Amino acid sequence: MSPNNPAALPSYDQIQQAAARIAPYAVLTPVLRSATLNALTGADLYFKCENLQRGGAFKFRGACNAVWSLDDERAARGVVTHSSGNHGNALALAAATRGIAAHVIVPDGAVRTKLEAIERAGAILHRCEATQAAREAKAEEVRLATGAELVHPYADTRVMAGQGTAALELLQQSGGLDALITPIGGGGLAAGTAIAAHGLAPQLALHGAEPEGADDAARSLAQGHRVGPFTAHTICDGLRTLIGESNFDALRMHRVQVATVSDEEVVVAMKLLWNELKLVVEPSSATVLAAVLKYPERFAGRRLGLVLSGGNVDLEALPW
Amino acid sequence: MSPNNPAALPSYDQIQQAAARIAPYAVLTPVLRSATLNALTGADLYFKCENLQRGGAFKFRGACNAVWSLDDERAARGVVTHSSGNHGNALALAAATRGIAAHVIVPDGAVRTKLEAIERAGAILHRCEATQAAREAKAEEVRLATGAELVHPYADTRVMAGQGTAALELLQQSGGLDALITPIGGGGLAAGTAIAAHGLAPQLALHGAEPEGADDAARSLAQGHRVGPFTAHTICDGLRTLIGESNFDALRMHRVQVATVSDEEVVVAMKLLWNELKLVVEPSSATVLAAVLKYPERFAGRRLGLVLSGGNVDLEALPW
Repeated sequence: MSPNNPAALPSYDQIQQAAARIAPYAVLTPVLRSATLNALTGADLYFKCENLQRGGAFKFRGACNAVWSLDDERAARGVVTHSSGNHGNALALAAATRGIAAHVIVPDGAVRTKLEAIERAGAILHRCEATQAAREAKAEEVRLATGAELVHPYADTRVMAGQGTAALELLQQSGGLDALITPIGGGGLAAGTAIAAHGLAPQLALHGAEPEGADDAARSLAQGHRVGPFTAHTICDGLRTLIGESNFDALRMHRVQVATVSDEEVVVAMKLLWNELKLVVEPSSATVLAAVLKYPERFAGRRLGLVLSGGNVDLEALPW
Repeated sequence: MSPNNPAALPSYDQIQQAAARIAPYAVLTPVLRSATLNALTGADLYFKCENLQRGGAFKFRGACNAVWSLDDERAARGVVTHSSGNHGNALALAAATRGIAAHVIVPDGAVRTKLEAIERAGAILHRCEATQAAREAKAEEVRLATGAELVHPYADTRVMAGQGTAALELLQQSGGLDALITPIGGGGLAAGTAIAAHGLAPQLALHGAEPEGADDAARSLAQGHRVGPFTAHTICDGLRTLIGESNFDALRMHRVQVATVSDEEVVVAMKLLWNELKLVVEPSSATVLAAVLKYPERFAGRRLGLVLSGGNVDLEALPW
């Protein structure tokens, strides 16, 4: 349906170009450290705070790169996506930086506060039924009617390239790392990170974290091929997606090792991040610290970068 | 009682020395920006995130400078303070960086989670009645018994010098400012900031923010002399203190203009900081944004630095 699905993986050069393209708009997010968390894990941890990125998530990087990759004529027709989560919000914010229209397909029953944020960012909302098929059909309908460019949340070369820019920054800010870990959902962040990291540091070990209730990447790697659609059962709302086709290829090519964690372990990690770093992150983000706590044999003694992917949680409904 | 009370104000040189002294231990906290908050205030805002400082507050800077200012012989006898809030915690953490004892006087009825944090940081707790007189008497008793050095939370030259280092960083990170605003409690941060800022940029305008229920600095400036003890009525638990004597002198000498805000305005600002910057800050910290929102005529059109002083709040008891 989309010309970008399955999407070609970006090259390291494309990630570097993305970094230059988004620099005027994206936040150079800080890297934080904690002596207490280092002691607890036996590793040397560098937390890349994408929860402090514009829109509260790394998603702004990919959306912004996609928006500013368009030539003027295509840009004038706007952009469209069928994600009502962080990517929808990010695309709305990115479109606003260029003064173009953003169409966001929102399924019935989507969280009201999220929709309000997307609307505040200036997007045009299009309602549809709450199935993946209805969302994709509606996006296609809007695309045909408006000429808007589809920007897929993860199966898009430009989006993956943008997401990879966080790893470029982290490697520079930390002064070099032995290993990196990101959460894995659709795999946009994981793929971009793998290509960016190995472009700069070919020997670096790559890790991913998944909730047990959405462990399709782990199962896919174990089976040697991508598993089919599944029903997710996890509080990690950003990671309920089936990994994309080329995103999965990137995991294999770059030998990404995936650790799975329970929702309970995620909540413990969320609390630790609040107590020790004063960061409120999404459950999806806390998977990375949960994985490091759970599998010390993989991480102890290493200089490890952790991408905290986002901070869009409802403070009145924390999972503890 | 203390040799540091009333304390001499630090010089600009002493603040620069403090910056070098604490650099190995303190976090170079990030400066964040928000297009939305700029639009809302008509100013160009630079938020210095001391909520992400070690111990979750700027207090670590002053405590750390005090601890590392001691010669080995005095340091070996430890340090003592009668603050059970952020300064007590900061002094415990700072003492731990030097491997020396920290004695913290804690009044009956102090918040359990705060005491646990101070204990986790390795301090020795000494209980006393919940009056200022009892706390000071107990601190003096411990000082005489142990030879520990008293480190007052704000009426201490070394502490004020340490607190001023946040402004040095902010001015460098932002590339220059027209004005700066900090919360005002005992005045350690306000005094250190004023001296540091005017050392680097003599023309810079200085502002302070106080809750209406603890507006002793505003009243003192209006009357031309420091008012007496008062009973605070505000959710800004870090700002319930009477401003120190020399701290008040610093406000006058550096022509600090103080704005007062209501607790309701503070809560609005706290929510904005969460929604727009994904930062959970203490009510005390949110006073600065509340002041900028309330008095646009003082701030609009200016490049303004705001010190977010701390983030030690109970997520389960947010004031909304």
